Amino acid sequence: MNDEPRVPRSRGLRHRGPDTADVAVADRGSNGTSASAQAEPVVAPPRPDDGPANARWRALLAEGTPIMADGAMGTMLFASGLQFGDPPEAWNISHPEIVRRIHRGYLDAGSRIVMTNTFGGNRLRLGLHGLDSRVGDLNRTAAIMLRAEVDAAGGAALVAGDIGPTGEIMAPLGTLDEEEAVDVFAEQAAALIAGGVDLIWIETMSHLSEIGAAIRGARRASAGIPIIATMTFDTRGHTMMGVSPEQAARALLAAGANAIGGNCGNGPDELLPVIERMHAVAPDAVLVAKSNAGMPELVDLQAVYRADPATMADAARDFRRAGARIIGACCGSTPAHLAAMAEALQAARTA
Amino acid sequence: MNDEPRVPRSRGLRHRGPDTADVAVADRGSNGTSASAQAEPVVAPPRPDDGPANARWRALLAEGTPIMADGAMGTMLFASGLQFGDPPEAWNISHPEIVRRIHRGYLDAGSRIVMTNTFGGNRLRLGLHGLDSRVGDLNRTAAIMLRAEVDAAGGAALVAGDIGPTGEIMAPLGTLDEEEAVDVFAEQAAALIAGGVDLIWIETMSHLSEIGAAIRGARRASAGIPIIATMTFDTRGHTMMGVSPEQAARALLAAGANAIGGNCGNGPDELLPVIERMHAVAPDAVLVAKSNAGMPELVDLQAVYRADPATMADAARDFRRAGARIIGACCGSTPAHLAAMAEALQAARTA
Amino acid sequence: MNDEPRVPRSRGLRHRGPDTADVAVADRGSNGTSASAQAEPVVAPPRPDDGPANARWRALLAEGTPIMADGAMGTMLFASGLQFGDPPEAWNISHPEIVRRIHRGYLDAGSRIVMTNTFGGNRLRLGLHGLDSRVGDLNRTAAIMLRAEVDAAGGAALVAGDIGPTGEIMAPLGTLDEEEAVDVFAEQAAALIAGGVDLIWIETMSHLSEIGAAIRGARRASAGIPIIATMTFDTRGHTMMGVSPEQAARALLAAGANAIGGNCGNGPDELLPVIERMHAVAPDAVLVAKSNAGMPELVDLQAVYRADPATMADAARDFRRAGARIIGACCGSTPAHLAAMAEALQAARTA
Amino acid sequence: MNDEPRVPRSRGLRHRGPDTADVAVADRGSNGTSASAQAEPVVAPPRPDDGPANARWRALLAEGTPIMADGAMGTMLFASGLQFGDPPEAWNISHPEIVRRIHRGYLDAGSRIVMTNTFGGNRLRLGLHGLDSRVGDLNRTAAIMLRAEVDAAGGAALVAGDIGPTGEIMAPLGTLDEEEAVDVFAEQAAALIAGGVDLIWIETMSHLSEIGAAIRGARRASAGIPIIATMTFDTRGHTMMGVSPEQAARALLAAGANAIGGNCGNGPDELLPVIERMHAVAPDAVLVAKSNAGMPELVDLQAVYRADPATMADAARDFRRAGARIIGACCGSTPAHLAAMAEALQAARTA
Repeated sequence: MNDEPRVPRSRGLRHRGPDTADVAVADRGSNGTSASAQAEPVVAPPRPDDGPANARWRALLAEGTPIMADGAMGTMLFASGLQFGDPPEAWNISHPEIVRRIHRGYLDAGSRIVMTNTFGGNRLRLGLHGLDSRVGDLNRTAAIMLRAEVDAAGGAALVAGDIGPTGEIMAPLGTLDEEEAVDVFAEQAAALIAGGVDLIWIETMSHLSEIGAAIRGARRASAGIPIIATMTFDTRGHTMMGVSPEQAARALLAAGANAIGGNCGNGPDELLPVIERMHAVAPDAVLVAKSNAGMPELVDLQAVYRADPATMADAARDFRRAGARIIGACCGSTPAHLAAMAEALQAARTA
Repeated sequence: MNDEPRVPRSRGLRHRGPDTADVAVADRGSNGTSASAQAEPVVAPPRPDDGPANARWRALLAEGTPIMADGAMGTMLFASGLQFGDPPEAWNISHPEIVRRIHRGYLDAGSRIVMTNTFGGNRLRLGLHGLDSRVGDLNRTAAIMLRAEVDAAGGAALVAGDIGPTGEIMAPLGTLDEEEAVDVFAEQAAALIAGGVDLIWIETMSHLSEIGAAIRGARRASAGIPIIATMTFDTRGHTMMGVSPEQAARALLAAGANAIGGNCGNGPDELLPVIERMHAVAPDAVLVAKSNAGMPELVDLQAVYRADPATMADAARDFRRAGARIIGACCGSTPAHLAAMAEALQAARTA
Repeated sequence: MNDEPRVPRSRGLRHRGPDTADVAVADRGSNGTSASAQAEPVVAPPRPDDGPANARWRALLAEGTPIMADGAMGTMLFASGLQFGDPPEAWNISHPEIVRRIHRGYLDAGSRIVMTNTFGGNRLRLGLHGLDSRVGDLNRTAAIMLRAEVDAAGGAALVAGDIGPTGEIMAPLGTLDEEEAVDVFAEQAAALIAGGVDLIWIETMSHLSEIGAAIRGARRASAGIPIIATMTFDTRGHTMMGVSPEQAARALLAAGANAIGGNCGNGPDELLPVIERMHAVAPDAVLVAKSNAGMPELVDLQAVYRADPATMADAARDFRRAGARIIGACCGSTPAHLAAMAEALQAARTA
Repeated sequence: MNDEPRVPRSRGLRHRGPDTADVAVADRGSNGTSASAQAEPVVAPPRPDDGPANARWRALLAEGTPIMADGAMGTMLFASGLQFGDPPEAWNISHPEIVRRIHRGYLDAGSRIVMTNTFGGNRLRLGLHGLDSRVGDLNRTAAIMLRAEVDAAGGAALVAGDIGPTGEIMAPLGTLDEEEAVDVFAEQAAALIAGGVDLIWIETMSHLSEIGAAIRGARRASAGIPIIATMTFDTRGHTMMGVSPEQAARALLAAGANAIGGNCGNGPDELLPVIERMHAVAPDAVLVAKSNAGMPELVDLQAVYRADPATMADAARDFRRAGARIIGACCGSTPAHLAAMAEALQAARTA
């Protein structure tokens, strides 16, 4: 009978000191968003690679690729009763057993990078629900809870702190000042890091200036934390704000992202050329493909994602051939999709 | 490969200076609501027609009519998961991909005037959800997002900033002071104009004093912006507050609206005589018909709109014959309705 | 063609001065809740019967009885999309067309007393949704909107301002101080009266002290306004707090209510003896029966009200025979129930 | 005809003085959470057993065991229309008739300990809905309402004030300071005790430090109130934070709980060994088993609890044999489950 306390191992927490103490380190990414239009392939500038989070990240990459990320959180939460108008992040506190069950589903499916339930966990979006004062505990709790699930599952996966867009548009076009945006993202990233995440995953961005602010914010919270940065290319191969895959690749690498790519969007058929175009200009970059489960179609006026697990498994193989090293899925996907994708990639690896 | 940034063209934004700088210009509409009961046809007083928004508006009118507006936003949002008690405007930030998809549906259907998702975006209605401090970013973001969709679709449509009623009733009958109402509408209009709308569309009003306050508010934000003003005639041919089509036509034109008409209500059969009566007293006015998709019927205690696309296409032809120059649809309509209407009007135009 | 403005007639509003100006008049009901246990039948003490609201009330009673009240508001709102956790009163501003449609249904069914959508419109219940500052406009708007519907339907019905319980329990057992309760109810009643209601209907109460505070609050807002006061007898013939029909009758009449009775509860079978017992001790009182549409049964874990229109029509006849002079329905009822009840009572009257 | 007021008897209230006055009594449980890992069976330290609540508790235990607790509140509320994102505690004020109906169902099924609808009624979770200022009235009203139902049912059951986790994680791992946690729980417990509960039931905890803070908070509100303390063992026989049944038993008894055990989790099959292991190290403790109605399974992406009443009746017999003296059910259970369990235990007792 094992009577020892099984407190979550929280590797990141125990050794996080060096990462989180260096808040004052110069923001390397602060001028990275002004990507010069170089013709030759771009490479990421060197970064301080100390700290245990970075060591875990490098170890995961060293295992060989592709690496499985996870699938949709929102799709699973809505299926579990979340209403469309409600803040999913509140469920980290009000319905933790459901959030945990979803994480467990993806861990069981073979995901090696799983994301916290904090997509809208910045103060501007939480403020739509009067929760702007709770960025700290909602993000930190999400990270600790996911860490506990990862440890209970054996500890082989990395915990990624999910950061999505603010929803506002950057000045001068919109109302969001760049320095305020950096503050907003730094606040969220600091809470995620305090909760022990292994890396920060910034996703679903459309504006270069906003994703730039998010990278700067994350770097302000920790100069050394690995950062994955993905944009959504859902408007004729560009983001809604007109960013091309090549522009994104250059700007994100220059801003200091450790891995870049695309997520969400109109299904694998549209994401595949995005990955190919990124690979062409940044052949050494760690590329990430996290596609929706097909093009959302309107059925009885509702969005339906029709790609089944077999289709997504095929897509996973395509993404791998196109150069993606981290592969997951986004809206419309379930653990069943992820399990099929993991199996396909495993077969391809050993073939 | 096009590697150039496709930043939304934002025509309105680039040239908006002259329109938005003249906030101090005298409110031309401030005394316009005291419509004298003239027997002869009324005409709109002259307005300063400078500014690019006005140029785009005049160019659209010059193309020949009728011009297709769009269809229901609320119907589509509820079908996409919005709960009845929740503020649709928050989705501009929390679910932008769904709002964009709805705009895209109407643009694909041929709409040339599309409305922002800001019907209840004034501080009094947003205050029902604790969002009264976010009028600025919710309206501005809605406008920028719709502009990006219009540009991605080729840029041929105009972006209309939607302004609906406050929900409160004007003093002395109700609690809303007229000057406060003007402030409330001016705040919303200013945010929409800052986001780059081409015109302001004030709709679903029942009170002459409230729609007068809305026109004054919009004019305070920009003296030159085109304004469409439509009321809802759903109580035996009058608005709920007893305004007749003739009274509405006279008052709205006198207040400085560039186009007037009716929206929402009990279906095209009831809106048609409204347009005819407006046409009789204001034959030169730009008339607008944006009817619900039929009379709402209670089926299993729920409102159902039974008019199918073919019925609405017939209605569109009727509205055109009655003198309407801008034709769209309201509650219960979908892109399929709008497409059928556009096809019918196109056929009628070329016949 | 009638081109005259059809501004709602708002009879109550035009002549309301005398009623609403007398806020300082002594609270006649303030000591009325300490009902002495008299053995003989009780009668209401004389009240100042001036004011137009009172004249309309007396005229309605003089028409002969029974008088049809209306049916469920909540049941209809939930069927129209209201979520269970949301404040129905907000719909007076956010979805007025739905509230109006429900009022219209009951007016068409023959209701002569229709109730505003303000059951939970006190500051304590609105405070559950952060709307405690909006008691004034939500109640006043509800009253004005219902008045407009009544006038559009011919003006024959009376507008009753609905006041329900605070949800809190009175001190010393609970946390709600009696003077605070009077303030809470006076605030709501004043807003309803400012909106032009013909009478105040206090309903669904379980505590004598709370309904006493509500009557005092309404009297503070207007000494002369007619007041209907009904409690819910759903626990073995008593209210949840143990009040018997006889105690209720004596206390409510002593507190100055113009009409008394029971509403909600476990269906007509349980309300009928309540009315009989009230009639026995207060044979001259205007008695009110507004029963749920049957005993709520759990079907698939949900409350279902099984009484169909024919059953409620039978119940209406029974209530009349038991001495009720105002008859309506409560949870689970629809306009179809009310129409059947009105027909049955009309047939009984002319028989 | 009984014309006497049937005011709820509120035994707890009448005699509560001694219990609630002793707030300053030393917190016996304050150092109890640092459970030393003793090998021998542990016993609870002596407690001041004065006060009527304690007398009722001792009397219930003296009747012989097992004693029926109640079943799921949340499951019943969701089935009654509660949305997943809404605070169930608000229904104590906004939908009391539904909460009462659920209590009544469990009382009719034979429950002798019924829990207030206050699982998330602490200021941190209520704060997710802007209700942090209403801990007092929501908890006190819940207790008074349940007391009235218990009395209407004959008064044989005990009213347990339900206290669940804050949702936040204790420092230093999380953001919640221990002293703040004690304050949070003391505030809720004081409101429940002011409402007249017979005991405090702390449940669904994963962290020893948080349940320790809850016990200290309850003791601060009343040194003598009986406390039931149960944790959730849903991660391979441990809580999510790695606490084993043996650790829990020792720590909870040392902290001064009057009864200990497990609730919620993955169904009776996983809770049974937890009870057995607790019984092995604490054979004299009053053990509590309140299992979910089976392992939650994902069906169409939703959690479904498949254990039917007969299965739970079998489980109740198993729990009794394992040493549990208080037996109820948790998520997924209904009055039908409880009735079957009560019958099985009654049969076993008389066999």
